[in-house]
Amino acid sequence: MSTTPEATQTPVVGIIMGSQSDLKVMQAAADILKGFNIPFELTIVSAHRTPHRMFEYAENARKRGLKVIIAGAGGAAHLPGMVAAITTLPVIGVPVKSSNSIDGWDSVLSILQMPTGVPVATVALNGAANAGLLAAQILSTANPVIAGSLEQHRETQKDKVMRSVEELRKGGLGED
Amino acid sequence: MSTTPEATQTPVVGIIMGSQSDLKVMQAAADILKGFNIPFELTIVSAHRTPHRMFEYAENARKRGLKVIIAGAGGAAHLPGMVAAITTLPVIGVPVKSSNSIDGWDSVLSILQMPTGVPVATVALNGAANAGLLAAQILSTANPVIAGSLEQHRETQKDKVMRSVEELRKGGLGED
Amino acid sequence: MSTTPEATQTPVVGIIMGSQSDLKVMQAAADILKGFNIPFELTIVSAHRTPHRMFEYAENARKRGLKVIIAGAGGAAHLPGMVAAITTLPVIGVPVKSSNSIDGWDSVLSILQMPTGVPVATVALNGAANAGLLAAQILSTANPVIAGSLEQHRETQKDKVMRSVEELRKGGLGED
Amino acid sequence: MSTTPEATQTPVVGIIMGSQSDLKVMQAAADILKGFNIPFELTIVSAHRTPHRMFEYAENARKRGLKVIIAGAGGAAHLPGMVAAITTLPVIGVPVKSSNSIDGWDSVLSILQMPTGVPVATVALNGAANAGLLAAQILSTANPVIAGSLEQHRETQKDKVMRSVEELRKGGLGED
Amino acid sequence: MSTTPEATQTPVVGIIMGSQSDLKVMQAAADILKGFNIPFELTIVSAHRTPHRMFEYAENARKRGLKVIIAGAGGAAHLPGMVAAITTLPVIGVPVKSSNSIDGWDSVLSILQMPTGVPVATVALNGAANAGLLAAQILSTANPVIAGSLEQHRETQKDKVMRSVEELRKGGLGED
Amino acid sequence: MSTTPEATQTPVVGIIMGSQSDLKVMQAAADILKGFNIPFELTIVSAHRTPHRMFEYAENARKRGLKVIIAGAGGAAHLPGMVAAITTLPVIGVPVKSSNSIDGWDSVLSILQMPTGVPVATVALNGAANAGLLAAQILSTANPVIAGSLEQHRETQKDKVMRSVEELRKGGLGED
Amino acid sequence: MSTTPEATQTPVVGIIMGSQSDLKVMQAAADILKGFNIPFELTIVSAHRTPHRMFEYAENARKRGLKVIIAGAGGAAHLPGMVAAITTLPVIGVPVKSSNSIDGWDSVLSILQMPTGVPVATVALNGAANAGLLAAQILSTANPVIAGSLEQHRETQKDKVMRSVEELRKGGLGED
Amino acid sequence: MSTTPEATQTPVVGIIMGSQSDLKVMQAAADILKGFNIPFELTIVSAHRTPHRMFEYAENARKRGLKVIIAGAGGAAHLPGMVAAITTLPVIGVPVKSSNSIDGWDSVLSILQMPTGVPVATVALNGAANAGLLAAQILSTANPVIAGSLEQHRETQKDKVMRSVEELRKGGLGED
Repeated sequence: MSTTPEATQTPVVGIIMGSQSDLKVMQAAADILKGFNIPFELTIVSAHRTPHRMFEYAENARKRGLKVIIAGAGGAAHLPGMVAAITTLPVIGVPVKSSNSIDGWDSVLSILQMPTGVPVATVALNGAANAGLLAAQILSTANPVIAGSLEQHRETQKDKVMRSVEELRKGGLGED
Repeated sequence: MSTTPEATQTPVVGIIMGSQSDLKVMQAAADILKGFNIPFELTIVSAHRTPHRMFEYAENARKRGLKVIIAGAGGAAHLPGMVAAITTLPVIGVPVKSSNSIDGWDSVLSILQMPTGVPVATVALNGAANAGLLAAQILSTANPVIAGSLEQHRETQKDKVMRSVEELRKGGLGED
Repeated sequence: MSTTPEATQTPVVGIIMGSQSDLKVMQAAADILKGFNIPFELTIVSAHRTPHRMFEYAENARKRGLKVIIAGAGGAAHLPGMVAAITTLPVIGVPVKSSNSIDGWDSVLSILQMPTGVPVATVALNGAANAGLLAAQILSTANPVIAGSLEQHRETQKDKVMRSVEELRKGGLGED
Repeated sequence: MSTTPEATQTPVVGIIMGSQSDLKVMQAAADILKGFNIPFELTIVSAHRTPHRMFEYAENARKRGLKVIIAGAGGAAHLPGMVAAITTLPVIGVPVKSSNSIDGWDSVLSILQMPTGVPVATVALNGAANAGLLAAQILSTANPVIAGSLEQHRETQKDKVMRSVEELRKGGLGED
Repeated sequence: MSTTPEATQTPVVGIIMGSQSDLKVMQAAADILKGFNIPFELTIVSAHRTPHRMFEYAENARKRGLKVIIAGAGGAAHLPGMVAAITTLPVIGVPVKSSNSIDGWDSVLSILQMPTGVPVATVALNGAANAGLLAAQILSTANPVIAGSLEQHRETQKDKVMRSVEELRKGGLGED
Repeated sequence: MSTTPEATQTPVVGIIMGSQSDLKVMQAAADILKGFNIPFELTIVSAHRTPHRMFEYAENARKRGLKVIIAGAGGAAHLPGMVAAITTLPVIGVPVKSSNSIDGWDSVLSILQMPTGVPVATVALNGAANAGLLAAQILSTANPVIAGSLEQHRETQKDKVMRSVEELRKGGLGED
Repeated sequence: MSTTPEATQTPVVGIIMGSQSDLKVMQAAADILKGFNIPFELTIVSAHRTPHRMFEYAENARKRGLKVIIAGAGGAAHLPGMVAAITTLPVIGVPVKSSNSIDGWDSVLSILQMPTGVPVATVALNGAANAGLLAAQILSTANPVIAGSLEQHRETQKDKVMRSVEELRKGGLGED
Repeated sequence: MSTTPEATQTPVVGIIMGSQSDLKVMQAAADILKGFNIPFELTIVSAHRTPHRMFEYAENARKRGLKVIIAGAGGAAHLPGMVAAITTLPVIGVPVKSSNSIDGWDSVLSILQMPTGVPVATVALNGAANAGLLAAQILSTANPVIAGSLEQHRETQKDKVMRSVEELRKGGLGED
């Protein structure tokens, strides 16, 4: 990432995941942040296989300059909740539908149902792109440039829908 | 709220809910924000019964100075997701277990499973206190005073656990 | 649709869906309406990506001459319920099993579990053909021609079953 | 019902339910129809204990002048779907959460998941009031008086929300 | 079936299913009955598309000499329960996992959760072979030949397991 | 049971349950059999706490004259399936919703989802009355007296519904 | 615990739980261990509110002489899995059905669905007594006294069932 | 297994499964035990098809020198619970996701939800590798060599994660 502009800046979002196999899902969060020019880092932090690394990562996050952590995990997904227990930064949890998951219910409930005192901002199953957008929204509360980019992103989404509408209309469908 | 200190300031968090019956759950979010001296407003906005009001609320939220919206709803809970579709502010969704709910699954899934492009930061079923904490965490990314209060809040939580530990130890239990 | 007979008439059924990817499911509703010579329109209206368009569509539906709206959506499916909140026309909701859905439960519950005051006539998961039939049934309450066509459609269904029965009987199976 | 105005008219909505124990839920449908001055009948028709009665009821429904049938049932709820198989009138299904139900899932799925060819317009668990409203909406497609009443009913719903909003505002809460 | 020995006898088991697409699952019931030399018939009876045929089938079943009915259906599976409501013969229900089923839960619950007074002997999802065996067990209560065949069938099952045990042992595994 | 008429006869139905706490549910099966004058026995046989007793009970069942076994159990309910594995008599399984059950799903699935070769005739959650009726239906395949009683029982059920119908009609409701 | 015999010995089982509110469930594990004279300790260790304490507890467990850890928690229950990630002692997880739990599914799946490499021996929802027994069974693999006590405990269970059998028999029920 | 060192020793772990089709899942338990040089046996024991064999296996397990039993089964999985009812050795249950399973819920609940008195140490769906590790952990409570191997195994897991971390860092990602 050495040549992209965001890499030269201190990361403000940390994207972590429990296993390299989660990368194919979690990449979407990185792609969103790149699109918004928000500097980020991305790495593997396993709650179960590298608990000490997880502790250190979470404890140092705020002082290292991170403002938001995006954590993805599958099955009995403890990474988002444990990181949220150690840092007071906002933690966004991405339930990943892993193999041997019971239809994704395990990761959804393991991340969502946190006890009072330790919230995790949970997004949809495999919803890493939305995790990236939510991180941008959080940063936008103090950053008007990102706020503007978010409005633009919404316009782009709308335009894409309207092009589908137009195509259907050309095919003789759609309302007047 | 005219006499409390936080009411004299412009609200930065909007707590909304689909029905007055949600207030007994959602009050916990207000209580947390009061504890952190974060100015907020709290009102009823029903996606299904006052859709125009919902539109206006969401469209004006950022320009009115709000930085985070906490939206609670039960059943086919559309309020958090619809507000998130209209504003680009971070929206925290609280699934409320209403009567006639199918064990809360309806509100959880209606809020959590948002499509790509429109995230909702979902917390646990009836998790309004955590919604308040998450709002504080989001604000803490640009406000060191709130960041400090969050650390203190964690200490208080820890102390409460440690008092339970001590009580059990006095009863002859616990580790050395 | 300019050359088909039903297109020259004002549409009385509006088929809308949250995303172009829903079209492969929702096409079945259009096919049914074509078969009954019921004029319809079909377009994309996204609750989350084009909320203003959705509002306008729902608000103008009755005055534009629509009598029934069929709305299909997946995941946290808010389109049917939000349209039903804005118009007082009957709205038929089709839960679509999208990718990353939690087995379709999310769209089913997001559409079905509407609060008192705003009904959505929900059909089975991916049940767009039945949505088309239900629209015909609704129109049949004031239109004997459609009522007659529905009876014929039932006969055709029955005949198809009876041909299977006959085939099995020829194979030496079936009752006397 | 001999003295109420709607009873002197031929019923256009038939409210049926599988068991007298469903009446406490299904009464809400009758109450809505009374409020809209829509003539209706209400009776017990059990798919499992009076199958012949069910057949006759469904077969004669359209010729007796009914335009919509509302059918409520719990557990393995076959009444709505079987009536829908025999008549071509629109049938609204109300899943009733009966005792020994598995959390209502059984009645929801038994009513919702109808095969292609035989739709049931399913409403929420115990959603009898919405079934009444949906019947009114169906009739409104050919009856401007009912259409007007539906708009008024929506206004009443909105006013009720706005009064809650006002109360909260007086308590110092709510937006400006 | 004219040339097989069991076909020359009056059928004592009726295998019915809601749709020809269920045949690939239900064939296993027929195969079991053939193996036990129990005369049976197999046909399509759709509760939803041929309700009159279903009524007649169920009403005449006992007088036609049937002793057990095996009924398979998917989705909102009403066939087993409706047949059980009309006849007092034992009815075995086979939940079929059809396309667009919600993971099979719909057919399982639609068949299993029958109200008091009308039992359906439900077997596992797609468990048609077990339905055939259960029919044989029912007949065995008055037929010692079938009882003997059932014991033999069990022996065959056991032998098959023991051959696997032997194979593993030859591979150096297994207990002494 | 020495003074009741059915007790002087050899029991043909064995009602067993995993725990005395299941008796309040399982009593309904005994009540049905008494009503049909079918001799039965009722006892506790725990698969987990008295496995040897369970083995002996199942192995001796047919030679002791039993024709049907009704087995009720909750949680990880192994009794019906294990008895069915040892005897070739038809075994009717009653899932009991015990305390600490996960909403009854555990007992339903533990009883229903038997592997090929060992069927259990599963009835609804807490459906002991239907288990009794199913046992009567099984016996009716070779016993015209019981067949007659079953028809009468159905008439009684129908009459009870028709009395409710009449009551509603007197209240001015119901169809003509 | 100073006066009970087991307390004078070094604890070999550590019973921990996430919150004092879990004690009413988890007490059953302690009761079992007392009955087997197995020295234990019992305390509160919260993964989310005292993560450092949890780390230390887990890291020191083996060297402090513990042989088995029993960990109970509700909701997004991370305590058993995180402790299991830090120690290599066998960890028994008890899913506790807490208030606001989604029917216990959250704690069950959060504890059960651990990734490869970090097992948790999960027992039933609220199954603390069985956790105690499982701990005894684990210790019995190297301790014949405990093995003997387990056999006795089984006899006691059996005797209790047999007394119920006897009572029913005196009432005229039961097999010969 | 005659040439491998662990085969010459008396097995201390018995791996059993209900059907040969479970072997592809259960092999992972054997592989783990081989890696730890723990002597084991592996065979088929079907609760439903070879109940007597199951009884004998369980009854003789402790006296044959086994210390832990790993039992895998799918669907209405009765093997782990029944073996646990007969022996007092610790029994580890592996829910296997078989074909026609209802998404694995049946085997999970049939194994997990054991009644008080008869625990089964349940691992994740298809979690045979973790069953092997849990067996090793149980043995490690009295065997320091295995305890050491477990620590080493953890190091290997950690190293594998750290290599992924390093790879991402080389790609310009990861934290400093």
